Amino acid sequence: MQDNSSKLIKLNLKTPFKLKQGGELHEIEVCYETYGTLNESANNAILICHPLTMDAHVSDNGDTNVKPGWWNFLIGPNKPINTHNFFVIGMNVLGGCRGTTGPTSINPKTGTAYRTSFPEVSIEDMVDVQKLAIEQLGVKKLKAVLGGSLGGMQVLEWSVRYPEWVEQSIAIATGCQLSSQGLAFDVVGRACVLNDPKWENGMYDNSGISSITGLALARMIGHITYISKNMMDRKFGRKLQDGRRGEGFNTAFMIESFLHYNSEKFLKRFDPNTYLYLSKAMDTYDMTEGFQNLGHSLSRALSSFLIVSFSSDWLFPPTDSIQLATTLSNQGKSVTYANIETDLGHDAFLIESDETEAMVQLVSNFLKS
Amino acid sequence: MQDNSSKLIKLNLKTPFKLKQGGELHEIEVCYETYGTLNESANNAILICHPLTMDAHVSDNGDTNVKPGWWNFLIGPNKPINTHNFFVIGMNVLGGCRGTTGPTSINPKTGTAYRTSFPEVSIEDMVDVQKLAIEQLGVKKLKAVLGGSLGGMQVLEWSVRYPEWVEQSIAIATGCQLSSQGLAFDVVGRACVLNDPKWENGMYDNSGISSITGLALARMIGHITYISKNMMDRKFGRKLQDGRRGEGFNTAFMIESFLHYNSEKFLKRFDPNTYLYLSKAMDTYDMTEGFQNLGHSLSRALSSFLIVSFSSDWLFPPTDSIQLATTLSNQGKSVTYANIETDLGHDAFLIESDETEAMVQLVSNFLKS
Repeated sequence: MQDNSSKLIKLNLKTPFKLKQGGELHEIEVCYETYGTLNESANNAILICHPLTMDAHVSDNGDTNVKPGWWNFLIGPNKPINTHNFFVIGMNVLGGCRGTTGPTSINPKTGTAYRTSFPEVSIEDMVDVQKLAIEQLGVKKLKAVLGGSLGGMQVLEWSVRYPEWVEQSIAIATGCQLSSQGLAFDVVGRACVLNDPKWENGMYDNSGISSITGLALARMIGHITYISKNMMDRKFGRKLQDGRRGEGFNTAFMIESFLHYNSEKFLKRFDPNTYLYLSKAMDTYDMTEGFQNLGHSLSRALSSFLIVSFSSDWLFPPTDSIQLATTLSNQGKSVTYANIETDLGHDAFLIESDETEAMVQLVSNFLKS
Repeated sequence: MQDNSSKLIKLNLKTPFKLKQGGELHEIEVCYETYGTLNESANNAILICHPLTMDAHVSDNGDTNVKPGWWNFLIGPNKPINTHNFFVIGMNVLGGCRGTTGPTSINPKTGTAYRTSFPEVSIEDMVDVQKLAIEQLGVKKLKAVLGGSLGGMQVLEWSVRYPEWVEQSIAIATGCQLSSQGLAFDVVGRACVLNDPKWENGMYDNSGISSITGLALARMIGHITYISKNMMDRKFGRKLQDGRRGEGFNTAFMIESFLHYNSEKFLKRFDPNTYLYLSKAMDTYDMTEGFQNLGHSLSRALSSFLIVSFSSDWLFPPTDSIQLATTLSNQGKSVTYANIETDLGHDAFLIESDETEAMVQLVSNFLKS
C-alpha cells in the first residue's frame, strides 16, 4: 500500500507505547516521506497531518516519475510551501493502513495481523507517535504543523500537547470536536461496516477486501458530507448518467453513478478495520476534555495560529473555526482567521481551484510572518 | 399492519390500471379512513396525503380507545381541521405497506406476494389511485388536498393533474423535485437494503423482516436528514448515553443510541421492498418533466395554494418552497407562502410544538379563506 517514495522508521521505544484509552504497543513503525533538507538549526521542519483516508505521500517533490502527492499543488520545489526552504514531513497516522503500524500490521506477539485486537487509537496517540518519529529524524522544533479535517484536529492537539515544539499551527476545515450531526453520520458509516456479514468481526479475508460493501456504503455517506449541497446541484443536479432512467431500484441519476464509482475505488485502497479505528478517533476527539472549557484547553498553546474554514463546509462549518479563532484571540494570541467563500464544501482543501488558491496564499503568507 | 379504524375499498377497475413507468394492476385495494361526514353537495372533503412512512391513520377522531393518528394535533373534532365541518380522508398510497395494494400484497395472478415483481410506482400513480378511490367514496370535488414531504409532492401533482377537482392545495415541507443531495442520501439508503444479504433480492422471509439491518441503516440516514443540525446539537450534542465511553466501535454517544433505537422500531413497522419503491417514487418525481419549466407545469393548476416551509429543513429547504410560491405568484394565482422559523428540521410538520402551532394556524386560516 506504500508509495515508492515512502520510508519506514521504527520507533526506539524504551518502554511500551501506552495509548490513551488503554492498551500498549511494543513496536511501532511509522511510514513517512520528507521533502527538502533539514537545516543546521533543525528548525525549518513542517509536519503535514493527513485527513482520514490520506497518507504520507503529500507531494511528488517535483519528480514526474512519482505519483502526484495529495497536496501537490501546495508542497514541492518552488511551490507555495517551497521544499527548497522547508523540510516538509508527511507521515501516516498511528492506526492507519498506509504503512504506519495499525490494524493491518503484524502483531509481533502473535505473528498475525492485529485486526480488531489493535488498541483504540486517539488523536493524542497519533500526535505522540508523530513527536517520537520526528525526534528520531533529528527535528528539534516545528516551524509549522499543518493539516485539514482529522489532520486539523492533530494540529490543534500538537499546539496544546507540545506547545514548545510548535511555532505556527495551521488548522484547516476542522474544529475542536465533531458536532452531533457529524457523529451521527459516522455512527451510520461504522454500522454499515459492522453489519456487513463479510466483515466477519474484522476477520475478513484480506484478498477479498473489495467485497466488503459496508465500507463502500460508509464511504458514500462520508462523501456526501465532504461536498456541499450547492456543488452537488451544480455538478450533478438531477442529470441522468446515460440520459435514460434506471432499471429496478437504480435511478441512473449521475449522482448515483458518482457515489458508486468513488466508493468502489475506495474499497481498493482502504482497509475496513482501519476505517472503524480512525473514524472513532475523530468522533471521540474533544479538545475540551479534562478542561473547564475550550479557553482553558487552548491557553496551553504558545504558537501563532492560522485557522481557515470554507463557507460551504457543513461537516466542520465556519462557526467551528470562528469559535477557535475567537477563543485564541480573546487570549491575546496571534491568530489569523479566514473563511473562504466556495461551494466546494469540506473537501475544498484537497482540491486545486480558484478558491483553494486563496487558502494557498494564506498559508504561504502565514509561513512568512 | 392496519389500524383498527382503517377500512378497505376495492377499486372498480373497468380496465387494468396502467402505471406511469409501465406495468399494470388488475386489482387495487385502498386502505383509508374517514372522519366527519360528507355534506350533501359532496364538496367538504379534505384529502390527506401521507409522507413516506406514514399511513391512512391521520387521526383518532377524538376516540381515546384508538391509537392517536399521526396528525392528531391537526385533525379531529374541534381540532384546527374540524371534523364536525369537514369530511377528512386519510389514505395509504399505492405501493405502500399499510393496507393499500403494494409489494406486500398478494398478486391475484400468482397467489403469492408481489414483492419486487410489483410495478414501479410514481407520485402520478398514487394520485390517480387516490382519485379513483375518492370518486367511489362519493366525493365530487376536494375542498383541499393537504400533505407534507412525499405527501406534499402528491398535493402538487393533484393541483396540476386534476385541477378541476381541487379548490385549495396545501403543500408543506416539499418541492417540485428532490435536490441532488436528497437523491444522494436516498441512493445510499436503497444501497443499504439492496446490499443486505438478508434482503435476498426482495424474497426475504417475512417473519424475519426485523433482521434486515440494511433497512435500519437506510432509516438512520433518513432520520439524520429529517432533523436539523442545530436540533441535534441541542437535543443530543456530544452527551454520552450512560455517561460512559463506548466499548469496541460503539461510541455510546446519545445520538448513536437514538439512531439505533429508532431504526429498530422502524424495522418492526415497515417493509423493506416498500421502502425501495416509495423512496424511488420520491426521487424520480419531477413536476417539470415533459414541460418547458416549472411555470408551464404549474400553469395547469386552478386551486389556491398554501405553501409552508421550515427554516431548518435541509431536505426540502425554504428555497424549494419559495420557487413554487414565486412561480405561482408570477402567474397571478392565489398563493400564501410562509416560512416558519424552527430548528425542528424537515419533520417539523409531524411534531406538535410551538412552531408547528404556526403551521396549524396557517392551515386553519387558509381553509377559512
